[in-house]
Amino acid sequence: MYVVIMAGGSGTRFWPRSRRRLPKQFLNIVGERPLLRAAVDNAVGSSGDRSCVLVVAGTSHQPLVEQCLPDVPRANLLYEPVGRNTAPAIGFACVEIARREPHAVAAVLPSDHVIGDPVALRAALAAAAAAAADGAIVTIGIQPTRPETGYGYIARGDQIAVHGGQPIYRVSSFVEKPKREVAERYLAAGNYFWNAGMFVFRVDVMLAAIRAHMPELARGLDQLAALGGGDDAALARLYPQLPAQSIDFGVMERVDNVAMVPANFGWSDVGSWAALPEVAALDSNRNVVAGDTVLVDCAECVVDARGGRLVALVGCRDLVVVDTEDAVLVVPRERSQEVRQVLAELERNGRTNLL
Amino acid sequence: MYVVIMAGGSGTRFWPRSRRRLPKQFLNIVGERPLLRAAVDNAVGSSGDRSCVLVVAGTSHQPLVEQCLPDVPRANLLYEPVGRNTAPAIGFACVEIARREPHAVAAVLPSDHVIGDPVALRAALAAAAAAAADGAIVTIGIQPTRPETGYGYIARGDQIAVHGGQPIYRVSSFVEKPKREVAERYLAAGNYFWNAGMFVFRVDVMLAAIRAHMPELARGLDQLAALGGGDDAALARLYPQLPAQSIDFGVMERVDNVAMVPANFGWSDVGSWAALPEVAALDSNRNVVAGDTVLVDCAECVVDARGGRLVALVGCRDLVVVDTEDAVLVVPRERSQEVRQVLAELERNGRTNLL
Repeated sequence: MYVVIMAGGSGTRFWPRSRRRLPKQFLNIVGERPLLRAAVDNAVGSSGDRSCVLVVAGTSHQPLVEQCLPDVPRANLLYEPVGRNTAPAIGFACVEIARREPHAVAAVLPSDHVIGDPVALRAALAAAAAAAADGAIVTIGIQPTRPETGYGYIARGDQIAVHGGQPIYRVSSFVEKPKREVAERYLAAGNYFWNAGMFVFRVDVMLAAIRAHMPELARGLDQLAALGGGDDAALARLYPQLPAQSIDFGVMERVDNVAMVPANFGWSDVGSWAALPEVAALDSNRNVVAGDTVLVDCAECVVDARGGRLVALVGCRDLVVVDTEDAVLVVPRERSQEVRQVLAELERNGRTNLL
Repeated sequence: MYVVIMAGGSGTRFWPRSRRRLPKQFLNIVGERPLLRAAVDNAVGSSGDRSCVLVVAGTSHQPLVEQCLPDVPRANLLYEPVGRNTAPAIGFACVEIARREPHAVAAVLPSDHVIGDPVALRAALAAAAAAAADGAIVTIGIQPTRPETGYGYIARGDQIAVHGGQPIYRVSSFVEKPKREVAERYLAAGNYFWNAGMFVFRVDVMLAAIRAHMPELARGLDQLAALGGGDDAALARLYPQLPAQSIDFGVMERVDNVAMVPANFGWSDVGSWAALPEVAALDSNRNVVAGDTVLVDCAECVVDARGGRLVALVGCRDLVVVDTEDAVLVVPRERSQEVRQVLAELERNGRTNLL
């Protein structure tokens, strides 16, 4: 099985540690490893074979990718001249894999999520791969633990197979991020799962699905395939013309051979500073701290003090404080998504060095 | 009139901007000038004669004092080898002034307070000096504007004189920091004033009062006077033996020739970060900001971002954030006094470079 790590993200929600030039997947938001490196280790094991690991990332991040993944063959590192959402990126990887092995199974995985139990992840991927070999496009459905309104959901249909003791289900529908009441209903119903953006399929099956449902993308991918790789100038001309579309909307919601493997491996997309306590070690007052800190009577705070300075908090509750070399952020946990307003202000003032 | 600026303080309440090596009076907490420099300017005017300005400071701060006050004669800068509270410091200054002019009037003023209306301060000092010339020890009583529990109060007695249109009153008593209910009663009564630590007297009168009520200090001052100045080694031996006592407790509360000039010149002792909004310019959301900041939907915050970094706050209320080169502090305004707990922790961990 090939593993395709999607590392083209450019999120800003971990500002000031994340920057345009240093997106979240290159940061050690949790633990010591950059999330991208952890994603590879999780998928194939720390000492697993990297020859089947492909990474799709932005051209501007090439040095970071190579630094994070010195043990992944350079030929497996695919660079998008511009980001065009997930369908072109997955198509790009499929073309590259099909060149090597036309009917290979590939697992597409995000680069910037956190997995608590990598062994369980690999077991789920193995079951999904078995179903994919039969021709299904398989998603991983994460068992929800709370009525989260920030994720899309997958409605589980009938069981269609069992692989390695793992039941495989039909997907009856994909649903967008729900309102709170709807999310609560999903959680109670028990047959709704979080869509973690993990897909397993045969590359020929995915390319056929793209041809059927995204013909414009298919034509672009044909031209990509004809390039034969290595022609960066042609890629730079061609890639920006691919239709910017998500794989969910462009393919998954339109095909009828979609299956789902339910799983529970301590997944989090760690969507903002506020989500860190889900995945990081807590102190006795439920704070998450990194770096040089003094906390006096603080609880439920997230403090990232890896900027080289002491960060001292007294009497704070539910606060995020992040210190970096050139910027400090202070925001209540429940508002940490609003960091984007700071970035908008910096953009307006032309302070691109801080973005 | 001589002016004696008391600059021996070593407060920690403006940490991390203030440090042992850089106490509050050397910082530009409000405006551009260090508080010590502003204190001199307030007392004699920005372009006033400095030959009658004396400063008492700690030996270790000599370079800072000279840097702040390049225009004050070096012979007027008195250095205490160790801090022994206010009575020895005032006695030290009296000995020095008496050497030059035995019956001179001197005004003792703090170095780390903020004065909103320096012209009104100088008018109050002039009235106090006239009363002092008659032999009184005169305090300045600040008209209270709120039931503050953090200050000592002066109970005003009968009117005893008028100087330059300014009535002078007897002091009926000095009272310690009151409880809230008592402070409210004082405010309502109208005859209680804040004790701002400002005293005006003839140096011979003060030295006589010290001889009467603090004989041990008087003997030490006699030895100081015999040194004739300039003998630093002898000073370093002698000074630590002076009794560590406040002028309030040692003299003011014991003498009967104490008078008070009521005044109202926008005084604040700026006792902590929380007090800055009393004396600094506010933005439209009642924040006090200095340095490079982005505030999104914040109110009543105090942000000192003069550490060379951007400090960004989103959705914060009543929060103090201070960024310096090597330390960042975050504390709710109403708890800003508790910064001392951070210092205690740093002390325990031997991190003296941060103290």
